[in-house]
Amino acid sequence: MSTERPAAYQTLCDQFERVSYLADGASYLNWDQEVMMPEQGTPARAKQLSAITGVRHELLTADRVGEALAELRGANLEDPQAAAVREIRREHDRAASVPRELVERISEETSNALPVWKEAKAAADWSLFAPRVERLLALKREYAAHIDAEADPYAVLFAEYEPYLDLATAEEVLATLREGLVPLIDEIDASEVSLADPFQGHYDEDDQMALARAVLDELGYDWDRGRIDTAPHPFSLGTQFDARVTTRFDESDPVGAIGSTIHEFGHASYTLGLPEERYGSPLGQHRGLTVHESQSRLMENHVGRSRAFWTRLADRFDEHLSVDITPADGYEAANRIYPANTIRVEADELTYHLHVVIRFEIERAMLAGEIDVEEVPAVWNEKMERYLGVRPEDDAAGCLQDIHWAHGSFGYFPTYSLGSVLAAQLFEAAQSDIEALEAQLRAGSLESLQTWLTENVHRHGQRFRTGELVERATGEPLSADPFLAYATEKFGRLYEL
Amino acid sequence: MSTERPAAYQTLCDQFERVSYLADGASYLNWDQEVMMPEQGTPARAKQLSAITGVRHELLTADRVGEALAELRGANLEDPQAAAVREIRREHDRAASVPRELVERISEETSNALPVWKEAKAAADWSLFAPRVERLLALKREYAAHIDAEADPYAVLFAEYEPYLDLATAEEVLATLREGLVPLIDEIDASEVSLADPFQGHYDEDDQMALARAVLDELGYDWDRGRIDTAPHPFSLGTQFDARVTTRFDESDPVGAIGSTIHEFGHASYTLGLPEERYGSPLGQHRGLTVHESQSRLMENHVGRSRAFWTRLADRFDEHLSVDITPADGYEAANRIYPANTIRVEADELTYHLHVVIRFEIERAMLAGEIDVEEVPAVWNEKMERYLGVRPEDDAAGCLQDIHWAHGSFGYFPTYSLGSVLAAQLFEAAQSDIEALEAQLRAGSLESLQTWLTENVHRHGQRFRTGELVERATGEPLSADPFLAYATEKFGRLYEL
Repeated sequence: MSTERPAAYQTLCDQFERVSYLADGASYLNWDQEVMMPEQGTPARAKQLSAITGVRHELLTADRVGEALAELRGANLEDPQAAAVREIRREHDRAASVPRELVERISEETSNALPVWKEAKAAADWSLFAPRVERLLALKREYAAHIDAEADPYAVLFAEYEPYLDLATAEEVLATLREGLVPLIDEIDASEVSLADPFQGHYDEDDQMALARAVLDELGYDWDRGRIDTAPHPFSLGTQFDARVTTRFDESDPVGAIGSTIHEFGHASYTLGLPEERYGSPLGQHRGLTVHESQSRLMENHVGRSRAFWTRLADRFDEHLSVDITPADGYEAANRIYPANTIRVEADELTYHLHVVIRFEIERAMLAGEIDVEEVPAVWNEKMERYLGVRPEDDAAGCLQDIHWAHGSFGYFPTYSLGSVLAAQLFEAAQSDIEALEAQLRAGSLESLQTWLTENVHRHGQRFRTGELVERATGEPLSADPFLAYATEKFGRLYEL
Repeated sequence: MSTERPAAYQTLCDQFERVSYLADGASYLNWDQEVMMPEQGTPARAKQLSAITGVRHELLTADRVGEALAELRGANLEDPQAAAVREIRREHDRAASVPRELVERISEETSNALPVWKEAKAAADWSLFAPRVERLLALKREYAAHIDAEADPYAVLFAEYEPYLDLATAEEVLATLREGLVPLIDEIDASEVSLADPFQGHYDEDDQMALARAVLDELGYDWDRGRIDTAPHPFSLGTQFDARVTTRFDESDPVGAIGSTIHEFGHASYTLGLPEERYGSPLGQHRGLTVHESQSRLMENHVGRSRAFWTRLADRFDEHLSVDITPADGYEAANRIYPANTIRVEADELTYHLHVVIRFEIERAMLAGEIDVEEVPAVWNEKMERYLGVRPEDDAAGCLQDIHWAHGSFGYFPTYSLGSVLAAQLFEAAQSDIEALEAQLRAGSLESLQTWLTENVHRHGQRFRTGELVERATGEPLSADPFLAYATEKFGRLYEL
């Protein structure tokens, strides 16, 4: 490292490292809360997380950070230093507009909302959860207004998850997906082909866990830097030293559980590919949720749902579930399209995006006050009927299915679709860069693919803005076209369209 | 609560709550590090814990805390407010003498020392761990000097764990124990009685875990506020909302594992008995390690090793380990005295204290620079031979057996013996207060005992100083006499002395 870095830069980095370490500490406490914590631990955990969030906010908005940033405004920094300063400035500026008390209240409120969501979901009763959503919405509106009172609050919150693609881009991608997918799904619906569906038995959770571990071995998960557990709403979380995955099992649907495991593996791979020596700096942190989701969807869809990789997966399923399936059967089972499903995380690759559209429309309307929180179940069910032709049997299978609102995460959902389209775009680029990628996947080797992803995505941390990162990796701006081309080709072939 | 509390008191409490929440958050991260974290997670965890420790220190020593304390110096507060202020003042004053950087360095150094201790223990090679101990000793000497440069550094560090009994008291108790126990152990050694030792088989870990859970059920552990896991060095940790225990299993010694489980249950019971509504205040926190250890040893020795409770335990052993033992056999097995054992946590109730004496002498000498760190194995083995007549077969069974030095905990060991003697004293008082306590234990009911302990110990938090708490609960100052009387009577009967 250069010794000519200005003192203000060093001050800034030191302080930001503390901020990062606190955030990471809090994230493992979140993992504990969702995976390990006994039921009655919530009130204390809420206080602990709120205290860490509060001091993190204080450190990020401290005078010396503001002063260092002011001093560096004119400085002629080179990358990657300039990029680090840009990212710290962005986080500082957002945080500095919001009072610490509000940040702490949101943190405590979300910790406390979590068990209420679980309870409401178990009771399939939105009305139990609605008052919490009401409160969180009010807090989040207040939060957004502090950051930019003139802007659309939804856009302000969206930027929390994806700072460099604006909401217009997200809307455009979602519109393109809807226009492209609705006719494709209709065609599939009309097709006479029915794909193999060989998993009709009951598959024990322990066996599925053994299978999940075997699949993670196959994918090359580094167990010295990770672990797998179950969680009601699977997620991955951690640092480049310790990136954990969670999954959940449905005893009638082992393909779903493995898909979810591979998805979370993709998130963990990104985290584990961040540079160790940059730990604590923006240069050692992920580039936002679009890029994060691109990594999970790339693994889930372009590896885990590929004909090539099923030559490996089929054997693992045979070993652990005592089934006897061919790779072709497994491939078909993983790629069936079934619009009559109400659960996003169990959705197929195409209808998935319509689930995202539904949430996107509802949370925008809620945040804008265009619909009341009590109306959510009715609106939800009506939209689901319209977009997917199916009504959830109850709130648990409908508007209570996702954890995000209990986390206070409004504006998060669009990154799911953005990430999926980016996954296709990146995979297309990787295919053209890596000779015989398909043959490698058939042989169970992800090494070249992982090297390509690390080289083009992971190792950069936040050095580039999202758009820059995409263009450097693929030569093109973000676009839904590669995904639509891939989907049309793949499902056209599968369903003989 | 009174509305007449001075504003300075409120400021103080608010700030101290944040300090407490941060400390508790960090403690669950410690739990995770020892129980869940993948191997390579250490460097990042060290940074996270050091950051939390650092901000905790900053908040505790903030100007507004000093100012509020100064303002309250003349205030005419009533208990429990006065007690809360006394405790916050003590913590503030100690912290304010130490620079934050030193506190952070110690935190990071101990996180990083942990895997080195594990490695050294696995290799049975003290020389691998010695440089870490050297560094930690230097840091701890520096730490003690900041707090009181005139005082014996060992006394300063001891006060970290037991603030209100001075080192002279500890030395006196240890001397009394040594004088009382050495002849008793000699007599037992010379006795011709040999106690039952019915566990000669191999007992599967999973069965032992099921047994441990059954025993915790028997004891009334609240699973909604706790959990059990395994750890190489068992411990308990948490808050009144979530107090967890850990244990470890030796496939040839199920009595040891259950003893250790009951011990940690005692710690957890104390934590769960702290008042919920005082969470975050000193009034909702434990009274230091002597009292904490008294609760674990009371459960381990006076319940878990009692003839009465073995009428319940024997059945649980039968059920889960498929053995067929009588309560009398179990009682004898749990009370065998075997001086030829080198492992403290596997020691019997009497020789245990000689293990404590050995560590106490060695760590005082190390801290004072009277012995070099490299000499520790030789000194250790020599002392063990002298006090117990046995030499450890290697460093793993000798000076590397305990985790404490890897935690940077010097001055901690005496609280083990202090806690044990206090356990006997408290149990004697409980016996005289509770009618038919023995019959209740025989029936498997701990309710009256737990009520007595909560009433006399747990619910007070830090309201009283250690000595006051002991006198209020037992009518007498802390003394080793009840323990020696109990031991002489019990083992005299068992060994027909």
